[in-house]
Amino acid sequence: MTRMIAPPHPFDAAIELAPAGDGNFTGHTTPDYANMVGPFGGITAATLVRAVQQHPECLGEPVSITVNYAGPIAEGPFSISAHPVRTNRTTQHWTLSLDQNGAVSTTATAVFGTRRETWAGTEAAAPIVPPAETVAPEQFPEFIAWARNYEMRFVEGGLPSPDAGEQPTSTTTLWTRDVPARPLDYPALTALSDVFYPRVVLRLGRLVPAGTVSLTVYFHADNDLLADQSDRPVLATARSHRFGLGFFDQSAQLWGHDGALLATSHQLVYFKG
Amino acid sequence: MTRMIAPPHPFDAAIELAPAGDGNFTGHTTPDYANMVGPFGGITAATLVRAVQQHPECLGEPVSITVNYAGPIAEGPFSISAHPVRTNRTTQHWTLSLDQNGAVSTTATAVFGTRRETWAGTEAAAPIVPPAETVAPEQFPEFIAWARNYEMRFVEGGLPSPDAGEQPTSTTTLWTRDVPARPLDYPALTALSDVFYPRVVLRLGRLVPAGTVSLTVYFHADNDLLADQSDRPVLATARSHRFGLGFFDQSAQLWGHDGALLATSHQLVYFKG
Repeated sequence: MTRMIAPPHPFDAAIELAPAGDGNFTGHTTPDYANMVGPFGGITAATLVRAVQQHPECLGEPVSITVNYAGPIAEGPFSISAHPVRTNRTTQHWTLSLDQNGAVSTTATAVFGTRRETWAGTEAAAPIVPPAETVAPEQFPEFIAWARNYEMRFVEGGLPSPDAGEQPTSTTTLWTRDVPARPLDYPALTALSDVFYPRVVLRLGRLVPAGTVSLTVYFHADNDLLADQSDRPVLATARSHRFGLGFFDQSAQLWGHDGALLATSHQLVYFKG
Repeated sequence: MTRMIAPPHPFDAAIELAPAGDGNFTGHTTPDYANMVGPFGGITAATLVRAVQQHPECLGEPVSITVNYAGPIAEGPFSISAHPVRTNRTTQHWTLSLDQNGAVSTTATAVFGTRRETWAGTEAAAPIVPPAETVAPEQFPEFIAWARNYEMRFVEGGLPSPDAGEQPTSTTTLWTRDVPARPLDYPALTALSDVFYPRVVLRLGRLVPAGTVSLTVYFHADNDLLADQSDRPVLATARSHRFGLGFFDQSAQLWGHDGALLATSHQLVYFKG
């Protein structure tokens, strides 16, 4: 008798962690999510969310996470330590560290919490865009491995052509989801919040070195909303407020298929140029 | 002979820290910056920035900080530990913790860095407002002590009157600065980024319990720009994207007197209501 066992989705393989006791976990980078230097920042952030979720003391759902990319992550194994520093009635605060060979590569803090019914309202407005299936998907250059794991249907602000020149705005809006399609969960939503190529590349119309220094995600979706979203495309939009003196910021919104705001995200990025 | 020594500005007294060796500092809450429960979140964030600045290994200027309000801070002494987990050529990554009686009250991560000339551009637009001196300052209720340390000239979204009722937007825009006026520096800019009363109070038109869970500040100003700003009013504007399930977000911009973007800031807030 032969049993057919489907291999895990590349995303699940990339964020897989083995418990090592006392809040420690071991993982391994995967070439699938490689960026130009080290892994895609979104997959690192997703792996840190996963570590908290796998921790035996984890309570509730992700509310916010801040990930600081302190140093490069080399191809190979890494260890994550996750510690609940304070557990309240509705929130739980975590500190995390991702280490390789005794050096800290990434630090993070996360807040998990219990959601409950309150007054609700969405004040931001989703971009007005054509349906996902009417927008052609674009391919990233072959040397950006991680991008092959995302369907990217750019409505505005796609990758600039080599002769694009400077652009007046830094806004990119796209329909996006995992490839192959995969039901959305908190780790996947975390990774998606970093799906945008560097805003400075769009503004300058050329490739310049850039890397996220600090990434924050605020999760507005609860598990029910994620289940409703399932593997449908997410409408993702991002822009910068300010570039200068070697850094720029980015603010992003991730919208569900029916106009629910799933997450807002912010990052500070180092650049040369 | 009698020497007249001016007492320190209340802000400087509030963020004063005594080094206790090995990256540790001791401080003390001050009634001047008390909030309804514990100190004003902005003064706690400012004190954490100050701790890094006072650390003997500190390099460069603040680039970003994320502060997580894990538990209440009681009136009295506290200790801060600040550790540089990684120092690169242009960035230095810090982890911080504020403790009282062995319990963690606040965690933080910060990135300091060296700024250098690059391409620059401000894409966000400052709100169009009348000059600060033409807008009347408003007083907060007496029981909110910290607000007495800030001049607040609301252009829109001032504190709602008791019969205000629900409002259609959560935007507040005000000219603000320390009282007495004090030249702006990174700790003061950090505190100012939390100067907004809770957005949910504006939307609902009534006081409801609310407290910041996580605050992030991205510093765009360098020391020269702060020196140029000096003690002039800062144009501060904030709004929410989404309220629901016990949490809401807030995004803020702090603009200098001549239209330079000094900082952008984001926070996630717990609320009942």
